[in-house]
Amino acid sequence: MNDKVIINEVGPRDGLQSQDGSLSLEQRFAFVEAILKASISHVEMGSFVSPKAVPQMAGTGDLARQLGSRDGVELSALVPNMKGYELACDAGVNTVAVVVSSTETMNKKNINLSMDETMAVSRAVIERGRREGVRVLAYLAVAFECPFEGAVDPGYVRALAAQLLDAGASELVIADTIGAANPLQVKHLMSALAQEHGAQKLACHFHDTRALGLANVYAALESGVRRFDSSVGGLGGCPFAPGAKGNVATEDVVMLCEQMGCETGVDMQALLMVVDLVSEMLGRPQGGRAHYWLSRNAA
Amino acid sequence: MNDKVIINEVGPRDGLQSQDGSLSLEQRFAFVEAILKASISHVEMGSFVSPKAVPQMAGTGDLARQLGSRDGVELSALVPNMKGYELACDAGVNTVAVVVSSTETMNKKNINLSMDETMAVSRAVIERGRREGVRVLAYLAVAFECPFEGAVDPGYVRALAAQLLDAGASELVIADTIGAANPLQVKHLMSALAQEHGAQKLACHFHDTRALGLANVYAALESGVRRFDSSVGGLGGCPFAPGAKGNVATEDVVMLCEQMGCETGVDMQALLMVVDLVSEMLGRPQGGRAHYWLSRNAA
Repeated sequence: MNDKVIINEVGPRDGLQSQDGSLSLEQRFAFVEAILKASISHVEMGSFVSPKAVPQMAGTGDLARQLGSRDGVELSALVPNMKGYELACDAGVNTVAVVVSSTETMNKKNINLSMDETMAVSRAVIERGRREGVRVLAYLAVAFECPFEGAVDPGYVRALAAQLLDAGASELVIADTIGAANPLQVKHLMSALAQEHGAQKLACHFHDTRALGLANVYAALESGVRRFDSSVGGLGGCPFAPGAKGNVATEDVVMLCEQMGCETGVDMQALLMVVDLVSEMLGRPQGGRAHYWLSRNAA
Repeated sequence: MNDKVIINEVGPRDGLQSQDGSLSLEQRFAFVEAILKASISHVEMGSFVSPKAVPQMAGTGDLARQLGSRDGVELSALVPNMKGYELACDAGVNTVAVVVSSTETMNKKNINLSMDETMAVSRAVIERGRREGVRVLAYLAVAFECPFEGAVDPGYVRALAAQLLDAGASELVIADTIGAANPLQVKHLMSALAQEHGAQKLACHFHDTRALGLANVYAALESGVRRFDSSVGGLGGCPFAPGAKGNVATEDVVMLCEQMGCETGVDMQALLMVVDLVSEMLGRPQGGRAHYWLSRNAA
């Protein structure tokens, strides 16, 4: 697999939003800066959601302004609706992420909208982004299993995917929000989507709840996917999805990719320092499952 | 993958030999009994090695006699040489495992024999086993990477494999003793071996040092392998291989297989109780990476 893989670091958003406490804006800024220093060029740095619902993400506009735009770096933010899109644009963000859950119930629980309403909102953001030169990443959450509805029909996910890509989404991100997927499912779904839309339009977002995160990354790589969300130190979870554990750890994904000959461009030594930094900020040790080994052996 | 998968539980041997203390024979007996109660039908219950070198395995002959033979159950033991083979047979063991390390240095460090000497010993045991109706499992240790010599040439491993199978080994077990393999390597090697010898002659033994254990199991499954060593609770390591961490956890492998539609026949609830039992015996919590999730969610 002599190929380039894009690592989209979601620790500053998916990682921090599930923590009990909140980091200060200064800490969040230092966190993103440290990630960029590790030569990670894609970072989801926050979300424009209600600070009442997700206090950890309050002040993302200020964070975005402080970070500014950087050459060759994609600094993205999650937006739940058109108001969020506008706030993001006002703060100078030029890549946003919209999220459609793959089941009726999960959309209700997550943002209190029906599937049709969520799709309408997301398509409107995608279409407006296209007109205004803003990249829009479209997420399909709980794309394999929903904590409320159980197994999700892959055919239904593919239909939703087609709608989002047809609307003009820059990329489609298939998210196993609760870490319930197995690699065989991943291979089947991602191979089908790659055939339908081209693998370069796809990305995957895995959680490690059942320890299958890396196996799922491998299965997606085999299906041609070359972009992955991950979270430094395995931070993360979803506050509205019972049982969701942390994202697959960035250091684990980078190690897997590099060992198989895929280039990520990430500086592993600097990345391990980011794990230490965020552990210190949160007052709890973080670290992917290979962190111990990597800390002792990374060159 | 609607198929049967054989789980060979190696906790009582590979798991216990790397622990600081030793369990009593009564505890080892209770451990194996609990494993059998979880409907695991293949167990490596000990080794006939020098009790000076590996005190944790002293008394394996008595353990074997106490366990006796069970219908439909393979109770195997590791033997380092012909003397070990004879001790195993005296104790009524009818499946033994011989180990050839895939590099010169590792053979020296492990049993102080050259590669040629180790091969000669192993072939002699295999051939005698065939004459005497004793199944012999042939292991190729450090088959991907050696802690002393680095990367191992897959062509060389395939040549060693052919020699062991030609000598009459019942099965060939490819062991990633230090947990250094990645799934792409596993797929290439196991697919080649499956083509050369048939997948039903093959098994895999993975360690989880770099968190790639389950990804490697998946890659081997994809290559047609349907027999895996694993260790309840992820116990294990190798005392003579620096950096080797625990075996891939039985509960994790069972979960992966069952989720993908492969039957293991293992009773997950009873298996989780074995994890608790051995944690209590060792005075340290054990548990695969999915143990927390499984403990709360296994039906």
